[in-house]
Amino acid sequence: MPSAAASERGSGSTLPQVTYCFRCIGCGSVTHSAAQDFRCAQCGNLLEITDPAWNSSSLDAAALKSVWRDRRASNAMLDRSGVWRFRELLPAPASPQQVVTLREGNTPLYELPQASHSTGVVRLYAKHQGMNPTGSFKDTGMTVAATFARQAGYHWVACASTGNTSASMAAYAARGGMRSLVLVPDGKISWSKLSQALDHGALTCQLRTDFDGCLRLLQQLVLRAPVYQLNSINPFRLEGQKTLALELLEQLDWQPPDHIIVPGGNLGNSSAIGKALLEMRDLGFIPRLPKLSVIQAEGANALVRTMREAGGKRLVSVQAETRATAIRIGNPASWEKAVKVLEATGGACEQVSEPEIAQAKAEIGVEGIGCEPASAVTLAGLKKLLRQGFVIREETVVLILTGNLLKDPDFTMDFHRGSLFQGTAHESESTQLKRFRHPPVVLDATLDAVIQALEQAEKSDPAHSNA
Amino acid sequence: MPSAAASERGSGSTLPQVTYCFRCIGCGSVTHSAAQDFRCAQCGNLLEITDPAWNSSSLDAAALKSVWRDRRASNAMLDRSGVWRFRELLPAPASPQQVVTLREGNTPLYELPQASHSTGVVRLYAKHQGMNPTGSFKDTGMTVAATFARQAGYHWVACASTGNTSASMAAYAARGGMRSLVLVPDGKISWSKLSQALDHGALTCQLRTDFDGCLRLLQQLVLRAPVYQLNSINPFRLEGQKTLALELLEQLDWQPPDHIIVPGGNLGNSSAIGKALLEMRDLGFIPRLPKLSVIQAEGANALVRTMREAGGKRLVSVQAETRATAIRIGNPASWEKAVKVLEATGGACEQVSEPEIAQAKAEIGVEGIGCEPASAVTLAGLKKLLRQGFVIREETVVLILTGNLLKDPDFTMDFHRGSLFQGTAHESESTQLKRFRHPPVVLDATLDAVIQALEQAEKSDPAHSNA
Repeated sequence: MPSAAASERGSGSTLPQVTYCFRCIGCGSVTHSAAQDFRCAQCGNLLEITDPAWNSSSLDAAALKSVWRDRRASNAMLDRSGVWRFRELLPAPASPQQVVTLREGNTPLYELPQASHSTGVVRLYAKHQGMNPTGSFKDTGMTVAATFARQAGYHWVACASTGNTSASMAAYAARGGMRSLVLVPDGKISWSKLSQALDHGALTCQLRTDFDGCLRLLQQLVLRAPVYQLNSINPFRLEGQKTLALELLEQLDWQPPDHIIVPGGNLGNSSAIGKALLEMRDLGFIPRLPKLSVIQAEGANALVRTMREAGGKRLVSVQAETRATAIRIGNPASWEKAVKVLEATGGACEQVSEPEIAQAKAEIGVEGIGCEPASAVTLAGLKKLLRQGFVIREETVVLILTGNLLKDPDFTMDFHRGSLFQGTAHESESTQLKRFRHPPVVLDATLDAVIQALEQAEKSDPAHSNA
Repeated sequence: MPSAAASERGSGSTLPQVTYCFRCIGCGSVTHSAAQDFRCAQCGNLLEITDPAWNSSSLDAAALKSVWRDRRASNAMLDRSGVWRFRELLPAPASPQQVVTLREGNTPLYELPQASHSTGVVRLYAKHQGMNPTGSFKDTGMTVAATFARQAGYHWVACASTGNTSASMAAYAARGGMRSLVLVPDGKISWSKLSQALDHGALTCQLRTDFDGCLRLLQQLVLRAPVYQLNSINPFRLEGQKTLALELLEQLDWQPPDHIIVPGGNLGNSSAIGKALLEMRDLGFIPRLPKLSVIQAEGANALVRTMREAGGKRLVSVQAETRATAIRIGNPASWEKAVKVLEATGGACEQVSEPEIAQAKAEIGVEGIGCEPASAVTLAGLKKLLRQGFVIREETVVLILTGNLLKDPDFTMDFHRGSLFQGTAHESESTQLKRFRHPPVVLDATLDAVIQALEQAEKSDPAHSNA
């Protein structure tokens, strides 16, 4: 066990003073505890975590940057985590032994040479959160929330999920010796994500409703049963997800990009990244804020409509429908936090169509990078923001890829076989996507058959070469 | 671009002398080039790569350990790769710009508290190669082989595959601006792995034969067409896979474990890890060799039979059949290299049954660690080796998990639904596996229904608690 948060943050005693508290994002009330619905007892709005230790007078940004970098070479458990490595900006557990970790974070920042070429954005990067232990960005938050669930003595944790949250929660619950209850919409999550919950021993309930129905039911459940809520309403999750921004900036040698573009589903991720950026600016880690833009699928565009139709003042919820299942959410829990982030950073909020998502996913795939469809809204969104002039080619842009290709293989198979849009309004549009498709061919096992296929491929796409 | 292999290894000029050569594992002939079948022109046996620079007089083990550790804190592209970070023990490309990397390696070493408890092995670890970019250990080798394919000017690369190799090759080919040809057995690889090849733009041919048939055909093809072979016969792949052992030892602070246990399929991985261990011992990095043991599925036990029936002198090939698809190989290419490794390290070669694999996979899953079935043969094998007294509880054991859970979700779904062994000889045995199963339940979206399910789960498994 490495040097604890205790000795590095606190009073020098082995058990640190718990200094964090909960602040209501609506009325600003501050409390030291929260009920399991994680809502303000005064006004019912969402809570966020804050810590008096996170202020520029007590934290030395330059020294911390150096400490965080040095920890990358450490073999200590907390240092190997790409989340707990940044523990000075996280709520401190009572002891490092409480920490439930699967060595999350530490995700790659990739250049995108082909998309750079096609969009003209020279400094274009993808931060691939799908390289986390369970294949999505959820792990960075789950390690923090599961730690505090265990510390609070819970035997059961629970979430409603489109799949990624349940996979992550089940893994971290198992790792922490807790049991997990997963509420998923029946028939509407990918096989792969469901298999993860099962593998990690979750009690998995497929409910005859949609995601929003699952979430509503969970809210009631946690007030009735001794079950710890691990949805992104849980503010500890957002604290862990903050580290995406810290790690990204470290990878860019603390030169903030001009734009960070993130998919928008339940909007916890946008909120967390935004919170991190604001904290880092206030603490003097970065001289200026990147613009954080949120992209949604047209069929699940609650935030887009909230901004356009209600000026961000009230949620316009929608009946969500998109093949990008990870963001098929019509009633996003963290919409108000996301609105604040858009306003504070000056980011845009846009929507993209199903064919645009499919094409962007294929374009990311041929960079050698496998992401799930929800992640690809970022590249599709970037193209739109370029056309609008909101992003210009000379700026530095980071796309946040939130989930792994392997999370939803059916999407990829359906796309390449040409059946993705069968029976939908996009069926006729789909012909323009043809050049991105290359379905598998079934052949007899003869040399002639294979050589013929090779020649055919060479002929049909002679331009494809070693870039 | 970071300091190149050039400046750190070679003569001080920007382009290093290419010093590696090919050595036949049979007759010992040494050459500076190899044909595309990567076989000895004299005797037809496999080649391995060797480099006169890798000898203890020119390499300072202590200094290198320190350099490698320091590189973990670097943001330079080559240093971020868990393979190229160890470039002093890899063949050197002509320039660092040639390197095709997706930031592979850097995989976690997990403790297994529950398996430790059940087996009595206190120091039990799992090195999870399924956390590589495409979800399997193949990436560590592919980055090296793809680099040399590109350097040699090839536009096409190709492999025969049970799925993981094709996924990895397609990703690295795409990353390196090359095209890829995948030969897979029709209907016998997982959807997930196939989706990866398609996503990364491979020409994917499903051949009406088995893996061994695909491999035979590839051997003919590479001698007829300008296609670079990326099967594990390619000795560059094994060089990259060596780094698994380097990274593992670094994670253990260079204290070698007593046992490393690895799944045995085409046997390239066993060969690579063994080669690394021998080189490290000879170079003074470690004082003694761990025993490297290879575990196969009973239905794909070519190496087991080769050892038992032919004393390792000739290959006893089999008609492979197992649900652990990643090791469903009856005619393993690297059998002779693996035999040498078993003999040199004193490791065991064992086989495990399909129900043993399924149970071990479930046991790893409830540690919060998701692996594919082939990976789980290691834990099943460990139990057998403990019963045989080959491993004792006081020894340090590392299991190599080779692939990610998401590579084969169908296995997990079938297992939990109880259909995994339907219609097979294991159907009657499967009742003993029941306690590991917890299929999803479909419920109406009511609070009562969920609370009832929760109470039922608590009652049926009251012993399951926070360990």
